[in-house]
Amino acid sequence: MNQQETYSLKPVGFVRSQLVRREDAPMQGYEGAPDVWVEVDAAFAEAMKGIEVGEDLILITWLHAARRDILQVHPRSDESQPLTGVFATRSPDRPNPLGLHRVRVRQIEGSRLKVGPLEAIDGTPVVDIKLVLAASADA
Amino acid sequence: MNQQETYSLKPVGFVRSQLVRREDAPMQGYEGAPDVWVEVDAAFAEAMKGIEVGEDLILITWLHAARRDILQVHPRSDESQPLTGVFATRSPDRPNPLGLHRVRVRQIEGSRLKVGPLEAIDGTPVVDIKLVLAASADA
Repeated sequence: MNQQETYSLKPVGFVRSQLVRREDAPMQGYEGAPDVWVEVDAAFAEAMKGIEVGEDLILITWLHAARRDILQVHPRSDESQPLTGVFATRSPDRPNPLGLHRVRVRQIEGSRLKVGPLEAIDGTPVVDIKLVLAASADA
Repeated sequence: MNQQETYSLKPVGFVRSQLVRREDAPMQGYEGAPDVWVEVDAAFAEAMKGIEVGEDLILITWLHAARRDILQVHPRSDESQPLTGVFATRSPDRPNPLGLHRVRVRQIEGSRLKVGPLEAIDGTPVVDIKLVLAASADA
């Protein structure tokens, strides 16, 4: 196991949202988050071919406002809950602050996708977009 | 939009599997993939607190054998299917080769987790582990 190696992620697009502060964002998309635009970098526009309005996608984001040095949290910031390892939660604070979001495609304009609901704040980098598998319960 | 920026992912663990070649791996976990051990780096063991046998987790992996320069594929490598953007598929080949896997926890031994089924090959780096949200259809 080589623990020294690292992998380089590049943004494939960015979230444009009315949510600008982390403290204003709901914890999950289905808790009242808005629709947003995802501006996909033109260099990756070809990779969007086949995405259709009305279908669900998984977005993986880079939660740039999160902390990477936090290993345990009180779930949902509720201090009555016991400290729990971040791998057993959906805390944005974690060693690699990846966000995982299931969203519906509302509109497509060139390489911009309107999707929602999404709790990620304005400026959040998107690092991957995936089809939701009907055969799987998951993402 | 700063397209030059990159983000540095570090492995939090590695997959130890009987699957050693990409061509032997099923395309999805539920297509006959084995159970595997995930060896979590001891530095992140605290982040596992609260993970329990029998529950489902999401693993995000770094698909180290994938190609990052491929933007369109024939879904499921079936050439009768039209070329489709990788963001509308689950192809491992994509600009940021992140794998997304829902698995069940079978056994916990210190900082090792036995989980399955998992189609990722032996040596695949794990970059994140997340709780599955019961309230969400997704991951």
